[in-house]
Amino acid sequence: MNELELIQRLCRHLPLNASTVVGPGDDCAVLDLGLADRRILFKTDAVVEGVHFTAETDPRLAGRKALARCLSDIAAMAGTPTHAVITLGLPPDCDLDRVDNLYAGLGDCARQHKVGVVGGETTASPGSLWVSTAMLGWVQSDRCVLRSGAHPGDALFVSGELGGSLASGRHLSFAPRLEEARWLAEAFDVHAMIDLSDGLAGDLRHLLKASGVGAELLAHAVPVSPAARAAARQGGRNALAAALTDGEDYELLFAVSAADAVALTDRWKSRFPGTKLSCIGRVMSETTVTLRDAQGRRTLPLHGYVHFQEP
Amino acid sequence: MNELELIQRLCRHLPLNASTVVGPGDDCAVLDLGLADRRILFKTDAVVEGVHFTAETDPRLAGRKALARCLSDIAAMAGTPTHAVITLGLPPDCDLDRVDNLYAGLGDCARQHKVGVVGGETTASPGSLWVSTAMLGWVQSDRCVLRSGAHPGDALFVSGELGGSLASGRHLSFAPRLEEARWLAEAFDVHAMIDLSDGLAGDLRHLLKASGVGAELLAHAVPVSPAARAAARQGGRNALAAALTDGEDYELLFAVSAADAVALTDRWKSRFPGTKLSCIGRVMSETTVTLRDAQGRRTLPLHGYVHFQEP
Repeated sequence: MNELELIQRLCRHLPLNASTVVGPGDDCAVLDLGLADRRILFKTDAVVEGVHFTAETDPRLAGRKALARCLSDIAAMAGTPTHAVITLGLPPDCDLDRVDNLYAGLGDCARQHKVGVVGGETTASPGSLWVSTAMLGWVQSDRCVLRSGAHPGDALFVSGELGGSLASGRHLSFAPRLEEARWLAEAFDVHAMIDLSDGLAGDLRHLLKASGVGAELLAHAVPVSPAARAAARQGGRNALAAALTDGEDYELLFAVSAADAVALTDRWKSRFPGTKLSCIGRVMSETTVTLRDAQGRRTLPLHGYVHFQEP
Repeated sequence: MNELELIQRLCRHLPLNASTVVGPGDDCAVLDLGLADRRILFKTDAVVEGVHFTAETDPRLAGRKALARCLSDIAAMAGTPTHAVITLGLPPDCDLDRVDNLYAGLGDCARQHKVGVVGGETTASPGSLWVSTAMLGWVQSDRCVLRSGAHPGDALFVSGELGGSLASGRHLSFAPRLEEARWLAEAFDVHAMIDLSDGLAGDLRHLLKASGVGAELLAHAVPVSPAARAAARQGGRNALAAALTDGEDYELLFAVSAADAVALTDRWKSRFPGTKLSCIGRVMSETTVTLRDAQGRRTLPLHGYVHFQEP
């Protein structure tokens, strides 16, 4: 059972209520708290020592990541983050200076994004250090972008470059795409969006499944990061496979009408000249994911990465 | 360094923002999200195997507790809970049926209180099983009760009976005092309120410190639970010491004007006939806490429990 199946199994126990616009299954929950033209976004996430960072990670960067992962989810709805609360699990032998630096990094990141960190709890943890973050944000009601709105024929875009995030340390230093996402939702009719945390192949499937569609990806168009290329040259995994499956990219994947694709590419380039934007394929009505490369068109297996071979 | 000092040390790193009405240091954060007559409450808390429940605890009760602890904090502000998100830390060998039952208990408790559980994450945990809950609620702007409003001369009240919660299992089955707290804030001018999680002696000090006052407690008036009495009879700790310091009572401690004390006692009795309400002392301007018993009046030490002796 993978994480998605586990969450689906657990969610069957959980009630929603009338003010829940979108419940589990998107990047954030979307709530109607009675504000005329705003929806409230609500998200939780955690970072755990030994999973998302190590004992050797600069604690300031671990703290930053604890907040930035949630920021990336708020970005995926084209939202603006406002408040966070933190729960800290402290192992018995934990060095206080380390925790202090973790909070300093978290606080700096919050300040940068004007997020108020308004509460928290500490608890003993018999295992390793962990930080659970819950975040609130808001989005104009008619600008909220879900995973579920992709249509056959839409163009699929991805920001930045993918792969090698863990090896290069980018998973600790990434900038959540908040400004880019809000600009996109304001300037274009974005049909569906998700942030890339599990890897392009997996997160694309989440978006497609929510939308009830499939996709064709163009292998040469997938933006591979220099880190993934360098690792491949040094005998590591195929660079495309890394870009499809490494995860922790925290980039935006989104679908817009194909008619908008050229204008979007042009306007992005002048608005965000330092950040790559790639059209990586299109949405199809058949609910499969195919990859087109020099060898032709083939189905991308569910766990594509185990089947990739260096050509 | 105790938990409070640790939180204070960590909080110096954390920014607030303009929409934060009350930040860290009360039972919940209080936010102004732009609703005319409502404030939004935001709280996080966690339960950890080996700390708040054990491997032998019925997982339904552990799940219930993960939600109910936050409900008790919403109650302490006289609020109404609305939505929760859950992060689950899963150890490698975790039995799926156990997690399933944990979520069933959590879901039942949410349903009972009309709380929508609108999202969550699961993460690997190298240590033990843990559940972090974040909760939203609301309160009418002029009915929100903080810790900080107690005045010298106020009467101090506590609901229910205290002590022995861990031994009796009440820490797993308690009913958060949501209805009682809302009724109190509607019917009376409640100056300050807190829920009892650390024990009366500790939580009273939190309330008094936030209000800049002290208190005199009447030893005979502190409501001691049958579990604490039974334990004392069987050679356990002094029952009053247990009631003052055991913790995990999840009852309400609050301050009202002394002029309201009689009416409050009468009306509570007819509104909540099954739940005890005790006037346990009064607020004083000197910032000490004293205990009056048959031997006279003496200062309650900061860690009162180590000094208590069976008379």
